[in-house]
Amino acid sequence: MTDIRKETIPRTANLPPGTLVHIGQRRIEAPVLSVIEYDPQHVREYQPADMEELAQPQKNGAVRWVNLDGIHDLEQVERLGAAMGVHPLVLEDIVNTSQRPKLEDYGDYLFLVFKMLYYNADENTILAEQVSLILRQGVVASFQEAPGDVFGAIRDRIRTGGGRIRTMPADYLAYALLDAVVDNYFVVLEHFAENIELLEDRLIEESTPEMLEEIYVLKRETSFLRKAAWPMRELAGAFDRTASALLSQGTRVYLRDLYDHAVQVVDTVELFRESASGMLDVYLSNASNRMNEVMKVLTIIATIFIPLTFIAGVYGMNFRHMPELDEPWAYPVTLTVMAAVAAGMLMYFRKKRWL
Amino acid sequence: MTDIRKETIPRTANLPPGTLVHIGQRRIEAPVLSVIEYDPQHVREYQPADMEELAQPQKNGAVRWVNLDGIHDLEQVERLGAAMGVHPLVLEDIVNTSQRPKLEDYGDYLFLVFKMLYYNADENTILAEQVSLILRQGVVASFQEAPGDVFGAIRDRIRTGGGRIRTMPADYLAYALLDAVVDNYFVVLEHFAENIELLEDRLIEESTPEMLEEIYVLKRETSFLRKAAWPMRELAGAFDRTASALLSQGTRVYLRDLYDHAVQVVDTVELFRESASGMLDVYLSNASNRMNEVMKVLTIIATIFIPLTFIAGVYGMNFRHMPELDEPWAYPVTLTVMAAVAAGMLMYFRKKRWL
Amino acid sequence: MTDIRKETIPRTANLPPGTLVHIGQRRIEAPVLSVIEYDPQHVREYQPADMEELAQPQKNGAVRWVNLDGIHDLEQVERLGAAMGVHPLVLEDIVNTSQRPKLEDYGDYLFLVFKMLYYNADENTILAEQVSLILRQGVVASFQEAPGDVFGAIRDRIRTGGGRIRTMPADYLAYALLDAVVDNYFVVLEHFAENIELLEDRLIEESTPEMLEEIYVLKRETSFLRKAAWPMRELAGAFDRTASALLSQGTRVYLRDLYDHAVQVVDTVELFRESASGMLDVYLSNASNRMNEVMKVLTIIATIFIPLTFIAGVYGMNFRHMPELDEPWAYPVTLTVMAAVAAGMLMYFRKKRWL
Amino acid sequence: MTDIRKETIPRTANLPPGTLVHIGQRRIEAPVLSVIEYDPQHVREYQPADMEELAQPQKNGAVRWVNLDGIHDLEQVERLGAAMGVHPLVLEDIVNTSQRPKLEDYGDYLFLVFKMLYYNADENTILAEQVSLILRQGVVASFQEAPGDVFGAIRDRIRTGGGRIRTMPADYLAYALLDAVVDNYFVVLEHFAENIELLEDRLIEESTPEMLEEIYVLKRETSFLRKAAWPMRELAGAFDRTASALLSQGTRVYLRDLYDHAVQVVDTVELFRESASGMLDVYLSNASNRMNEVMKVLTIIATIFIPLTFIAGVYGMNFRHMPELDEPWAYPVTLTVMAAVAAGMLMYFRKKRWL
Amino acid sequence: MTDIRKETIPRTANLPPGTLVHIGQRRIEAPVLSVIEYDPQHVREYQPADMEELAQPQKNGAVRWVNLDGIHDLEQVERLGAAMGVHPLVLEDIVNTSQRPKLEDYGDYLFLVFKMLYYNADENTILAEQVSLILRQGVVASFQEAPGDVFGAIRDRIRTGGGRIRTMPADYLAYALLDAVVDNYFVVLEHFAENIELLEDRLIEESTPEMLEEIYVLKRETSFLRKAAWPMRELAGAFDRTASALLSQGTRVYLRDLYDHAVQVVDTVELFRESASGMLDVYLSNASNRMNEVMKVLTIIATIFIPLTFIAGVYGMNFRHMPELDEPWAYPVTLTVMAAVAAGMLMYFRKKRWL
Repeated sequence: MTDIRKETIPRTANLPPGTLVHIGQRRIEAPVLSVIEYDPQHVREYQPADMEELAQPQKNGAVRWVNLDGIHDLEQVERLGAAMGVHPLVLEDIVNTSQRPKLEDYGDYLFLVFKMLYYNADENTILAEQVSLILRQGVVASFQEAPGDVFGAIRDRIRTGGGRIRTMPADYLAYALLDAVVDNYFVVLEHFAENIELLEDRLIEESTPEMLEEIYVLKRETSFLRKAAWPMRELAGAFDRTASALLSQGTRVYLRDLYDHAVQVVDTVELFRESASGMLDVYLSNASNRMNEVMKVLTIIATIFIPLTFIAGVYGMNFRHMPELDEPWAYPVTLTVMAAVAAGMLMYFRKKRWL
Repeated sequence: MTDIRKETIPRTANLPPGTLVHIGQRRIEAPVLSVIEYDPQHVREYQPADMEELAQPQKNGAVRWVNLDGIHDLEQVERLGAAMGVHPLVLEDIVNTSQRPKLEDYGDYLFLVFKMLYYNADENTILAEQVSLILRQGVVASFQEAPGDVFGAIRDRIRTGGGRIRTMPADYLAYALLDAVVDNYFVVLEHFAENIELLEDRLIEESTPEMLEEIYVLKRETSFLRKAAWPMRELAGAFDRTASALLSQGTRVYLRDLYDHAVQVVDTVELFRESASGMLDVYLSNASNRMNEVMKVLTIIATIFIPLTFIAGVYGMNFRHMPELDEPWAYPVTLTVMAAVAAGMLMYFRKKRWL
Repeated sequence: MTDIRKETIPRTANLPPGTLVHIGQRRIEAPVLSVIEYDPQHVREYQPADMEELAQPQKNGAVRWVNLDGIHDLEQVERLGAAMGVHPLVLEDIVNTSQRPKLEDYGDYLFLVFKMLYYNADENTILAEQVSLILRQGVVASFQEAPGDVFGAIRDRIRTGGGRIRTMPADYLAYALLDAVVDNYFVVLEHFAENIELLEDRLIEESTPEMLEEIYVLKRETSFLRKAAWPMRELAGAFDRTASALLSQGTRVYLRDLYDHAVQVVDTVELFRESASGMLDVYLSNASNRMNEVMKVLTIIATIFIPLTFIAGVYGMNFRHMPELDEPWAYPVTLTVMAAVAAGMLMYFRKKRWL
Repeated sequence: MTDIRKETIPRTANLPPGTLVHIGQRRIEAPVLSVIEYDPQHVREYQPADMEELAQPQKNGAVRWVNLDGIHDLEQVERLGAAMGVHPLVLEDIVNTSQRPKLEDYGDYLFLVFKMLYYNADENTILAEQVSLILRQGVVASFQEAPGDVFGAIRDRIRTGGGRIRTMPADYLAYALLDAVVDNYFVVLEHFAENIELLEDRLIEESTPEMLEEIYVLKRETSFLRKAAWPMRELAGAFDRTASALLSQGTRVYLRDLYDHAVQVVDTVELFRESASGMLDVYLSNASNRMNEVMKVLTIIATIFIPLTFIAGVYGMNFRHMPELDEPWAYPVTLTVMAAVAAGMLMYFRKKRWL
Repeated sequence: MTDIRKETIPRTANLPPGTLVHIGQRRIEAPVLSVIEYDPQHVREYQPADMEELAQPQKNGAVRWVNLDGIHDLEQVERLGAAMGVHPLVLEDIVNTSQRPKLEDYGDYLFLVFKMLYYNADENTILAEQVSLILRQGVVASFQEAPGDVFGAIRDRIRTGGGRIRTMPADYLAYALLDAVVDNYFVVLEHFAENIELLEDRLIEESTPEMLEEIYVLKRETSFLRKAAWPMRELAGAFDRTASALLSQGTRVYLRDLYDHAVQVVDTVELFRESASGMLDVYLSNASNRMNEVMKVLTIIATIFIPLTFIAGVYGMNFRHMPELDEPWAYPVTLTVMAAVAAGMLMYFRKKRWL
């Protein structure tokens, strides 16, 4: 589970392809492996003692969902992989948490890897956790970085027989998991939208230099969201279009729906990008407006008083022969002239609409 | 019916796919279900007592249009859906008013969902209402969020037998409804164009900080319009190209026309986007021009009077030995020098074209 | 014939598709219908008394060109349309002058609608007139909004037998008309290019706030030109690629040429867009340069005289015990110090390259 | 040969398609027609007396290269065209020097038209000359606007038998000519790159208002280069992909190479565009930095001396009852206070990092 | 090995295609040719005395890797090329180090050319070295500009039998080499990301004019990275999709993985571009904020003291009849008025939030 802003570059240089290297935060909790098996009539949940029993074929119509929380125990992942019969490269992708979301069709199984997004309200950050799915005939295996996921509602539906999940084959389960993840993107986007709206309101009221940083952070986060959303859309599209025999006709209609949701995620993210750009424009314009106002105040004060000060300076000169100085009317007249100059300036400013 | 600026993110996380959840504003009015049946000779309008009768097949060439105003009564939508024989996912899309416009081909029926736009002149906002269409052989079912729509003219044509609608099959009705919606986009765009033109005229005359906010709102609204217009274009294109047997040859030529209109909507929206960007440039330039003028006034006043004040300051010094002070010609000469300095400055400014 | 800046939004909401509504400026002149019939040996020009005779099939190899100037007499258009045997939607498009340029293949005839552009030198605007073409076997019908067109040279060539037009079938005539229109785009673009060049030259010499408005108008006009040019390119491309049997092999090579010209129009318009953006950058930079210069003048004057004025102020104080005041050398020394301060400032500015 | 900035709009309105009109600068030199015939063993160069002999078929494996320098003698071009058996439209394209680069496949011959670019170091401009190629079985005809080209090295290789050109068929010659032209683009780009680098260095050192114009000119030239480079890339791609039987397998591998070079030209031009945009950003930022510095100097001077001048002004007042004025310590104390105020201001500025 | 900023334009104008010209930095070290031959059981490393022996076919399943460090000895490259049986154009591409990355399928061999990137921490530059690969049945030949590469780990795996490389055919070796290069891009990107993060942190803290240059350099480097990354992605995609029989089914799954990595490189570079643009925005906004603050200080000081100085100036006038001057309370009252004016100004600024 990583802050999405930190997650850009995988590091497997100098290792042979297919080498298992866990990339991502090391965790101390022991990984938890759990299995749910169900058919329309029965549900059974257990923690398998032996990996090999997972390899046994399923009975007619039954679905087995193997979930592994924690992928840092490489040996465990490797044994599970062997039991599922997957290619070493798939295992490498599972444990390397900097994968680009993708779907790969290996003939007798599909491999899907994608990101689960969480919104961390406390730190106002978005966390990403990589989830890998293996879909075989009758079996779905999911690999997560850590305990905690967005699949609770699906487990409940399996347990209670709600919805149609118990009557559908394994590919529907895979779809349901992916759908839960995409739906959760909307939850994240909603928080995002709230932040944007809040910032917009504050911005229009008054814009401070601190907001610039906020806008910049927002822009960067949108970039990261975008980098996450586009491949998710590609993945959903590939899932929808794949010719794999693992997908039943009954599930395909749902995949089209999933694709629509992914497209909507992308559209919304693009809208956020535009909003962020627009906010920067508003911020810059506000700054320039404030500057303008500062300049106006300076100009008004200076242009009124500088000429007056000059007049005062003239009659502060010490020439012996300045006839005005001796006239009794000179002082009041000078003051009147000063007032007239000031009034003229003020009228000029009013005409210019600076006041 | 929602302000288009408020409408971005659907919320169905944690629900099984196909669950009916009404998303959108809750309404208190009871939903109204009405049916129009027509063939070239007859028209019959009624409110069906029983949903089941809607499921009965149509007589030769007759068309049945079932319209539901109000989709918040989920049970009613579900029964109507059952009567029409549609997939649960379709029902979910119908009641979730944050759908992306799309067309889906389910073999024996087509499902179309799109947005009807209204311009609310009082609040100067654009409202969007989601409309869903189901096109079966001989039947069109439309689902709207609220009473009131842009289909009045179509109803009149059916009642009076105007145009060729009574002689055409159900797919033509579906086309006519979609065409009425797209045509109404132009009404909205026209209001938009007027607003833009008005703002442009005001902007060129004089630009105030308030206009910045208006431009920003305009830009955002254009973004939303765009988000609505592009999928509408895709939808019209998909409608035109779909190979479905539900579309008769006679209707296809109209679909091409519909697509042209949708393309024109998109072109116009893109033009608005450019206009909004252009206005921002003009606004910023105007702001900078005004600033420039403020600075010039300050500079002219300051550069004329600061040297003069300095001269006055020199002869205001109290040195005992300042021979000029005693000369009778000193004061007039000083005043003349001051006038010459001011005149020189003014000539300099005129040469610089600051005056 | 409309100013291209005014022409964005068609208004046919609430009308049944295929209803003839004339959109565009109403005209008072009576529409003029004229016919030219030609084959390699003969030419005949006449104004038909009866629409029905236009429906008669052509003799071997002869071509009939029916031209209608003025489309506001809806009844006349309708009768001509009936004589030509075209679909009602085509007629609707012909009389609605806000069509997007397009080509439609109705099997036994092609329908083309596009814009003829004129440059109005007096008002420095670009006018657009919609032209519709119907191409049948041996017949071309053209519909124009008003008398006056760019087809004079084609008529002359038909009359005099110049070029190869008399020896070619009707599709070549359709091509020739479209080619004349596209060639005239270049005439418009040339005026545009001259305006741009002129504005560029003035801009580099000196940029005034009025130019900002001119640049803005230029940008908008480029947007409109672009909106006109792109569909023209699509139309030419569709004309080139269409599989219609109405196009003879001998004409196809010319269509490729036509498409090349349309592409060149688009390229040139895109170049204009970039020029307009570039000019805005130059304008803004010039404005900022001028501001910079104003600030420098203010700064130089103020920073030279403010310290001097301070010195003068010090010796203008009325303290009784200011020993310098009584020294005979004090005044000249003070003046010298002042001169030195001013000289130091000037040297500083020269070092900073402000002078 | 035209400055690429002057070359945008062809002018053939009102002329029948296929009319030969020479567009481009009129020249006084007589056109020169020269022929090189070669096979692996022989080379023969001559100036043909009679056009008809050019029409005679080639002996086995021999290649004939007909080159015409100067296309303003329309009659000569027409006779050569007739001898080569080309379509009138091709001749029109050859003499009209405002063609967009393109390749056209006329079945028994290919027609290529493209631009040769030269860098004119004296005026720092890029000149474009249109070259047209006709490739028939065993014959290549090239048409140039003026004497002088980039084909000298190819002639030398033919004469000396260097490279593999003498052993290859005519399509290789056509490739070699095009390759020479594309390679020369790199020479032009290199000059461009040098100019950009120079301007960048000067810009980072110090940016003057004159540079703005240079950047603007650079940007425009990049736009023109781009307009020339993209169709060249399309042309090379079309040459590579064309299914024409005129292209031998041995030449095809070279065409792929040619395409790679054309792609590299486009990539480089796009890089230049970005550089030019980047330079504008730097220029504007520099201008704003300089402004900032000017403002700081003004502010520092003004904020230090304005309060001091005020203090001096206070003790320059002529009130009779100002007890301080009579104290012997008053003057030194005042001066000390003034120094303290100035020092405080300086410390404030240092803290603000303005010094 | 060249700084990527220096590497844009190849220079082979005027040379016959297929001429070997070494482009790139001349080197003095002698080129080193080395061979590794391996099969699952054996490994043999040697420096071949004779080029011809490299041409001998491989035994069953064995793989021969011929590596040449240093391509400036043209004759040696030519002999090696002859021994490998490659086309002269391929040799030209190998020695010309300004190739655009590409893959070419010559039927019995594949030719790949691409860039190896290094990060030079001392000079903070990115160096590029061109690597060419020839993949034949059982043989891979690699050509590098200089000793030193990123293939050490692969050599180790071959020697120790680590990973699965010894059991795979020659195409896997080619993949492994390309994979090592792409993985090393991530190392470079990581340095880049660190630089960006550092610069961002400094920028938000305080932005100096020097940073502008750094941002500009960053932007340019991103442009160059982009120009390198996109064709790499195309190359990986072409490698993945090529139908060549040289690629075994076992290797293909790895190629898909390689393509994913290349896509990730491109995504990351695009993200960097956005970051750089964002930083420029922040820089410019910061500059404008600082300017704003400078202006505020000036305005506050000036608007407070200019009126006060005016008041002092009034009572510094030398009129004989100024009754206030003789009042004992006049001086304290004047000082009080001055304090009140200053206080009023300060309150105004506080209200305006300038303080």
